[in-house]
Formats: sequence, C-alpha cells, structure tokens
Amino acid sequence: MSNQPEVTPLTEQTVLEYVRNIPEAMAILGEDAPLSAKAILEGNVNLLFRVSNGKRSLLVKQALPHAWRYPQLKVPLERARIEYELLQLEAKYAPDYVVKVYYYDEPRAIHVIEDLNQHVVMREGLIARKRYPLASKHIGYFAAHTLFHTSDLYLPSGEKKAMAERFTNAVMRKVQEDLVFTQPYIPHPNNRWTAPENTPVVEAMYADDEFRSEMFFLKERYMTHAQALIHNDLHTGSIMVNETETKTIDPEFAFFGPIGHDLGSYLANLALNYAGQEHWSPDEASRKEYRTWLLQSMREAWETFEQEWRTLWETKGLHDEWPSARYRERYMRQLLQDTAGFGAAEIMRRAVGLAHVADIDRIPDTKTRAAAERIALNIARAWLMRRHTLSSIDELLEWTAAADDRGWE
Amino acid sequence: MSNQPEVTPLTEQTVLEYVRNIPEAMAILGEDAPLSAKAILEGNVNLLFRVSNGKRSLLVKQALPHAWRYPQLKVPLERARIEYELLQLEAKYAPDYVVKVYYYDEPRAIHVIEDLNQHVVMREGLIARKRYPLASKHIGYFAAHTLFHTSDLYLPSGEKKAMAERFTNAVMRKVQEDLVFTQPYIPHPNNRWTAPENTPVVEAMYADDEFRSEMFFLKERYMTHAQALIHNDLHTGSIMVNETETKTIDPEFAFFGPIGHDLGSYLANLALNYAGQEHWSPDEASRKEYRTWLLQSMREAWETFEQEWRTLWETKGLHDEWPSARYRERYMRQLLQDTAGFGAAEIMRRAVGLAHVADIDRIPDTKTRAAAERIALNIARAWLMRRHTLSSIDELLEWTAAADDRGWE
Repeated sequence: MSNQPEVTPLTEQTVLEYVRNIPEAMAILGEDAPLSAKAILEGNVNLLFRVSNGKRSLLVKQALPHAWRYPQLKVPLERARIEYELLQLEAKYAPDYVVKVYYYDEPRAIHVIEDLNQHVVMREGLIARKRYPLASKHIGYFAAHTLFHTSDLYLPSGEKKAMAERFTNAVMRKVQEDLVFTQPYIPHPNNRWTAPENTPVVEAMYADDEFRSEMFFLKERYMTHAQALIHNDLHTGSIMVNETETKTIDPEFAFFGPIGHDLGSYLANLALNYAGQEHWSPDEASRKEYRTWLLQSMREAWETFEQEWRTLWETKGLHDEWPSARYRERYMRQLLQDTAGFGAAEIMRRAVGLAHVADIDRIPDTKTRAAAERIALNIARAWLMRRHTLSSIDELLEWTAAADDRGWE
Repeated sequence: MSNQPEVTPLTEQTVLEYVRNIPEAMAILGEDAPLSAKAILEGNVNLLFRVSNGKRSLLVKQALPHAWRYPQLKVPLERARIEYELLQLEAKYAPDYVVKVYYYDEPRAIHVIEDLNQHVVMREGLIARKRYPLASKHIGYFAAHTLFHTSDLYLPSGEKKAMAERFTNAVMRKVQEDLVFTQPYIPHPNNRWTAPENTPVVEAMYADDEFRSEMFFLKERYMTHAQALIHNDLHTGSIMVNETETKTIDPEFAFFGPIGHDLGSYLANLALNYAGQEHWSPDEASRKEYRTWLLQSMREAWETFEQEWRTLWETKGLHDEWPSARYRERYMRQLLQDTAGFGAAEIMRRAVGLAHVADIDRIPDTKTRAAAERIALNIARAWLMRRHTLSSIDELLEWTAAADDRGWE
C-alpha cells in the first residue's frame, strides 16, 4: 500500500516558485516574460494550475492524499505514480494520443504537463455538436496499442505478472467497483436521476434481477479479469480534441483489468451524447444527421481498434503461446461483447449513479432531459442483455439506433 | 521476485541433527528412542525425508532452487513460503483436510510436517480399486471452504488485492501454463501418449482447431481470472486418504486463479481412473460397479462443494456487494462449467502432455492402455466442448459414461 506523507498543497503563489526551479518547465516557458499562475477548478480530486508567460503555458497537477473538493474522501498518493507510469507507457505505444509530461516529481506527487489549450474537452465539443473526423480512429488506435502491449498476447507471462504487482491500485478500483458496478443497481443514497418522472423506470430496473445479475457478472469480471493494463476512465471528459489531434489524459485509475472496458467507456459516452441529442439538436433532420455521425464514429472506433489489434497480433504476438486461428476470432468476438457490456455499465452509472454527464444533465427542459435519460437506459439495457450473441459492430449500432424513450418495459 | 540464496541440501545424516534442534519436531518424536532417517524418492522437485524413532515419525521437506531430480529445472525457493502460507490458510478454513505443519524454517525453506503413514496416496488406492466413502465429500468441503474465503464473495476488495500480491507465483504458474494449457495441443517434444496406435487420434486433436480454440480460451482464463486462491495441483496424487480421513498436500503452485480449476482437477483424476478401469477391473460386471462408484464420487464432490458454497455465501457472504438472487444461480452454473473445462485440461495433459498418470500408464497391455487413453480423451473433449450448456452435474456424469474408445471422430 502507499505511504501518505505530509503534503503542502501548492497555491497560485507557491506554484510560480515551484515552476521556476524546474529546468524542464522553464525550457518550455522561457525566461523572457514574467510568469503568472491560475488555479483551474474543473476537477474534484487533484489541484491543477495553469502557469503562463502570456505566450506559452503548461499545467501543474498535484495529487493530495484526499480529494481537494471533498477532503473527507481519502485517495492514495500512489495514484500519481501509477498515472506517471501509465503516461510513460502510453507515450511509448501511442505517442500521438497522450498528453506530454515535462516533469514528474515523485516525492511531491506533482506532474508538470502539456497545456492542451488548442484542444477542447471532447464532451464539450460533442455537446456543441462539433464533429471531430479523426477522434474515434485515434481512440481506437490508442486503445489497441496500449492494451495489446500489456496483454498476454504480447508480454511474456512472467513480465506481465511482475508488472501487475505495480498496478494493484486497490483504493481507486474500489471507488469504481462501488460507483459503476454496485450502487446504480440498488436503492442507494448516492443514486440520482434527472427527473422524478423517471423514478418508476429506475425502480423497474432495480426489480429486474435478470439485468442486475448480468451486471454483477460483469462486476466480478471487472474485479478479477487481469487481461491488460487498462486506462479505466476513458470517457469523453478524459479526452482533449480538435480537428486534427486527440489526446487522452488522467489515467490514475489504471490497473490490469478487462480489455473491453476502455473502448466500452468511450462508446458509452458517445451513446450518452446520442441520447442527449433529444435536446442539443435543433430539429429532427439535424438530430438524425448528428446521430448518424455519432454512430459512424462508434463504428470507426471499433473498426480501427479491431484492425490495429489484428495487425499487432499478426506482427508482434506470441504465436507459440496462442497457436490457433480460430482462437483469434473467438478472442475478437469476446472483446466486442465485453466492450458492449462494460459500455452498458458506464451508461448506467452516468444515468443513475453518482457521477453524471453534462450531455444529459445540462438539458434545461425536464421532460426532454428525462426522455434522453430513458433512451440512454434503454441503450444500456440492450448492450448488456443482448451482448452474448453479438458478433459485429453493426448489430451494436442497430440496437443503439432502435432504443426509444419508453421506460423499463 | 524471490531471492535464491545458497542452499545446503539435507542428507539422511544431516537431517537427524536438524530435527534434534527443532523443539516442535522433538515434541512429536519424543526423546525416548534413537532416531533414524530415510530419503523418500517419490517426488521430482523437493527433498523429502522420513525421520522416525521406530514408533513415531514425521517428514522433513526441503525446497531447493531447482528440482532435485532435474537440476537444470530452476524453481524459486519462494514456493516454500507460498506453500506454507497456503497450508496455514487451509488449516484455518478446512482443518480436517490438510496435512499438519509442525514447523516451518523460512530461511532454509524447510517444512517439518505430519507423516501421513496411516493414509495412502489416493491415486494408488483407486488403482487398487479401493473405495473411500468420504473422500469426495471431504474434497468438496475443502474446495468450497478454502476457495470461498479467498474470493470476492467473502474478502473485502482491498484485502483480497493486497493478498494477491503475496501469491503472484509467476514461475510455478508458467510451468502449468506450458504443460497443461499449451504443449498438449501442438506437436511438442514433451508430448507423449501410451501407444503408437493413438498417434492418429492425437493428430486429429491437433487438427481440431475448434477444440484447441476452446482450450486456449481456458488458458487465458487460467492466466488472468484472479477469482480465489486456488491450490492449483489438486489431483489424486496430492491427496492422502483412508476409510475415514482425507488430507491434501503440496499447494506450492497456489495463486489467485479460477475457482473451477481445483475441483476440475479432482474430477478429472477420477475420470482418468474411470478410463483406466478398462484394465484394473477384472470383468465387465465389476468394471461397471466400480465406475458407477467413481461417478457417484464425482457427484458427491460437486454436490458437497455446491451445498457448502451456498451455505457459506448465505451465512458469511458480502451481501451488499452481490445483492442479487439470480446472480447466485448464474455464478454456481458458471463454476460448474469452469469445473468441466479445467477438468478437461487436466485430462488432456495427463493423456498427451509430459506428466502422465499411473491409472492409465501402468496398464501393461498396449491395446488396453491405448483404449483407456482414448476414453479419457473423449471424456475431456465432451467436458470441454459441451460445457457452455452444462447446468447440472448429472449431465457431466452422463457425458462421462457415454465416452467410448473410438478416436477423435
């Protein structure tokens, strides 16, 4: 377990002095103009500052032994070391699709990182109905390359097991076990939904033990299936985008878990935006058009992932360990089914659990917001319950497009 | 990883002096008669001595950094610590069904243990067509209690993950990954079978990629599915029995793996003996009778396991973590299917891989031996390929009874 030393939180004043003493930071900022610092209050857990000389800037991210916004929530400092190691690994296998780290201060759990101020948070972009023609291909590539190289298809058995010991990450995992895989499926004080009119829908879900047992099956898989080193929080709020670039951030939840979880989270967040288009699209025609683009993006993410994965397996796989052509097909099909299942879990926790998404929650009209939420719930239900027969991404997209705003019937 | 210090192997001479300096050992042996020591040469890996005063005795088991019979095979001393910790845990949860440890010398990797000289190795007993009316119930109980208490149904999330770090056991696992889950399914120099007449059968198996892909699916599950702390070598050669008592030994392969593996190994070894009755039973009537008893024993092992597991879940389970009645049924069915699958892997490696069993290999007549082996192969094939629909132990026993000595058709 991690040790939790005394930590002095940075402030807008002290972060300036801190940065001036880091040559790697000053190499970015230069000495030619005075520095200023500003706290960024978007997150809940880590302290974040933008340090700028008016032209160039970077971010300073400090982990504390608790969430800064909720001091009673203890989270181990070790997560910063895990985040750093994962960022290094992602930079090795998918260098174009991960935020740059200029400097890491292990004793103080501080990252000095690239300021992605030419990018927007993908979730915000989607809410604004922007299209990012490359983002889904990039995420498919990112997932394939980071996950393949930490799986048993590539890493020798002993190396993988030694590596897993460095990523137990028990406390952060328990947070997700509770928030994603347990609380949303039982009456729990953390649960909330967008409008009272959906209460009967949620109660019908609580009473649907066939659905719940499938979800607890996935929970056990999430807790025990050490397939590859997963990002474990790859939603559209952890992705910075623009027209040409896609950068993932914040892998502090990483551990050796089921491969399908990462792409499932990504697809789920596209599906949540899809549901939110009840409001964000101004009319029926534009709604259909944007939703078609979202479905197409989901297809591109999976197809890129699958193609990259197959190529990696062919060119770099441990063929003596997995010498069966048919096994490859079985493996890819299982990944698709897992992607659907874990995607369903992500949708559920965003619709019913503690942590919601702006794609739905920011819809001002109650009736529309509640309808969008029911669409999301029905997408999740189809993905989870029908996944055992899933054999192509087309089917998953058909189920998504067929979801309506009726309740849990 | 383990350190591998210099080790001085005990001899029949030095083990006497060693024992005299261990009060826990002398408390068993007493001071009233002179001691003598005899090396026991049955195993391949660890040194083993019986120390006796003519009336009372005990065993001294020393781990070396290599297999004593094959000095080129390096195995980490850490396995002795893992064995000791698992024996402690088994003694806590299933005290009646595990060999007693009198003393453990961690620096020298030496166990001083109970001499089970009122018991026989279960495999030898079965070959002699003895019946042990309680053994299968005992093993069902042993598996349920040791596995449940190290599963996510009982252990809090963080405790289980911290515990798993102590049982990575990477080198020992790789041995089994190779010998049980890889080599038997490809042409490999380690593979052997009982008679040239079975060569076409083995070659047909090598060519059956549907069968092989199912096995590699199980291999991935074996490598990644950290469900509970499994014994991982629970065959009838690791079980000492008599009419009333059953004692498991040798858990040095333990790690957090799939729960179905332990009971699967046990059932598989009963099935191997079942196949071997082609020879060991003197006539058709007695063969039918003994095989019926073996099938009944398999049923008792599963039924005791299932009943104990359900009671433990009900009385000691983390109900807030797994709050679904239907999930319990799904979970039990999955355990049965896994038991069948991992049992098939154990049969395959004993029929075709490096490590065979006397139940078949000791049959003197070549034709009979080869026929027994084909029965075993057909049992394994049915267990593996049909397990996805398996919902009761009856079906598994029917598949077993229906296996014939035809080839891989």
